[in-house]
Amino acid sequence: MQLHDLPTPALLVERSAFEHNVATMAAARPGVALRPHVKAFKSTALAAELAAAGHRGFCCATAREMVGLAEAGLGDDLLLANELVDPERLGVLAALARDDLARVTVAVDSQATIDAAAVAGIPEVLIDVNVGLPRCGCPPGDAGRLADLARRRGLAVRGVMGYEGHLVGIPERATRESLVAEAMEALVAAHAEVGGEVVSGGGTGTWDCNTWITELQAGSYVLMDTHYGRLDLPFHQGLFLWTTVLSVSDGWAVCDGGLKSLGMDHGDPTIPGADVFFCSDEHITFVPEGHRDTWPRVGDKVRVVPAHIDPTIALHEWLWVVDAEQVLERWPVDLRNW
Amino acid sequence: MQLHDLPTPALLVERSAFEHNVATMAAARPGVALRPHVKAFKSTALAAELAAAGHRGFCCATAREMVGLAEAGLGDDLLLANELVDPERLGVLAALARDDLARVTVAVDSQATIDAAAVAGIPEVLIDVNVGLPRCGCPPGDAGRLADLARRRGLAVRGVMGYEGHLVGIPERATRESLVAEAMEALVAAHAEVGGEVVSGGGTGTWDCNTWITELQAGSYVLMDTHYGRLDLPFHQGLFLWTTVLSVSDGWAVCDGGLKSLGMDHGDPTIPGADVFFCSDEHITFVPEGHRDTWPRVGDKVRVVPAHIDPTIALHEWLWVVDAEQVLERWPVDLRNW
Repeated sequence: MQLHDLPTPALLVERSAFEHNVATMAAARPGVALRPHVKAFKSTALAAELAAAGHRGFCCATAREMVGLAEAGLGDDLLLANELVDPERLGVLAALARDDLARVTVAVDSQATIDAAAVAGIPEVLIDVNVGLPRCGCPPGDAGRLADLARRRGLAVRGVMGYEGHLVGIPERATRESLVAEAMEALVAAHAEVGGEVVSGGGTGTWDCNTWITELQAGSYVLMDTHYGRLDLPFHQGLFLWTTVLSVSDGWAVCDGGLKSLGMDHGDPTIPGADVFFCSDEHITFVPEGHRDTWPRVGDKVRVVPAHIDPTIALHEWLWVVDAEQVLERWPVDLRNW
Repeated sequence: MQLHDLPTPALLVERSAFEHNVATMAAARPGVALRPHVKAFKSTALAAELAAAGHRGFCCATAREMVGLAEAGLGDDLLLANELVDPERLGVLAALARDDLARVTVAVDSQATIDAAAVAGIPEVLIDVNVGLPRCGCPPGDAGRLADLARRRGLAVRGVMGYEGHLVGIPERATRESLVAEAMEALVAAHAEVGGEVVSGGGTGTWDCNTWITELQAGSYVLMDTHYGRLDLPFHQGLFLWTTVLSVSDGWAVCDGGLKSLGMDHGDPTIPGADVFFCSDEHITFVPEGHRDTWPRVGDKVRVVPAHIDPTIALHEWLWVVDAEQVLERWPVDLRNW
């Protein structure tokens, strides 16, 4: 199929950029030194490409992502990098381990989450340590106590995780580096109390400056977005929303992307060669640069660059893999919902 | 099923609020005076409730919504209130009309959209008139010419539509009313040139002050959101995100809603009795009011009020209809994607 024939709006994966990003990361963090975070792309087909590149351990944010990866034969080493207390879903994850469909590790950060994991029969946990992001994770000084508690409850403690999510988007490298060093000092201290082989953390923005972790939890790097694009990263933009121009007036043009096809928490998407005015449910109103005569016409196609990859992909059924004008294949976004 | 047993995050429809909203609107705009906009809720089960309340004509933003309603037996009078130039999708809509599965009307605002509709065999159109929102719609003075063109191309012209989307969210009633009057003056003038029986427009925010239209295109009123909640409307909040507390520290608590379960273009959601700090992919960090001892605990449930109904529902598979603690049924969100 040719790109021009693809119904819009459609999410495109530029194959060459994707391959460049995967190869660049794999060279720096080969094999288990990277634990790709599937929350960014929610596709077992894409995950299989990363497994083929040597990364066979995955990081998940939901039980659905864990189960989908296991069912796709990608269950070598699955980490739920999130707290979970739902007994039914924890039971499903424990069954994956019991039935040898996956190695299952779950993050815990409190007595309540340890109790829930133990009761459900989860075999392994990481102690989730707060390293400065106001979200989950125990205080660093509490990690050792929780590890002891988990072991007493029969859980194997593989180590610690701590996500410096408040730092991964800082554009200025020197600031980013020094704050990451501080955050990781806390994680390393917690690890000394907890024990185990795993120190998990980081993200796309700290892929090369977080040198304290044993494994990096990065996902956005595979396709990128304009938010991470502001940083000095070697990864190329590989995700685009393919849209059709529906209406053109003397003051603006309108294409068929919008709030139903783009995650908006990082603000408006970008259209090269145009100013994005605003987004509606199924429309982007934009003002092309240059003289009115050179503007796109109704029926023309426009590539839109998403501001935030994760919630954008979560709105789509398919990722269309393209090489210039050729549509190569489509990957189902099969890990949506919970 | 009891509400407490529902896996989270889950979108709840409070049955009593929904019924109040439907009855309030139906009393003011009975039958065809309301053309419910299904883009807000994307569910044929919910649409069937509105049809049972007397509104058997529907408004759509996508071809998928049109086809889904027709397949669900709700095709009495379907309007695609959006421009479409994709020949394949237009062909599918034309076939719905040809096979008597739906009455099909499509908005057009240019020669290109008229040509596309005519070539595909679309039977009926509305001339989409720009009434001030910088988006689709022809200049009001151009509507008559386009209607003539459409009729020459064999299309039946049912009238005009014009959406005052830039005005529906103005909280101050007097301002809203006077600006709507101005916008509708342009639409009425265009209608005089176009002819036909239909003058379609409006939304939840102008439900009672837009007196120029023959049919109101409102969808949000059925369940509401915090954005429309700022206005002086008689509709009750009937949509909630049901979440579970995952982690509680001395400074904040975290529940399992987030960017994958909430449309974010209108900003953060609201949690009654708490300040929302920020949202991540699968987390909301919030600070409960009151003394730390009274805060929710891990495993407790929290009701979150979405800021924008349309893109929130588009992220979900199900709407769970509840009456206090009882889960009555679930409606599939079956009109997602395009």
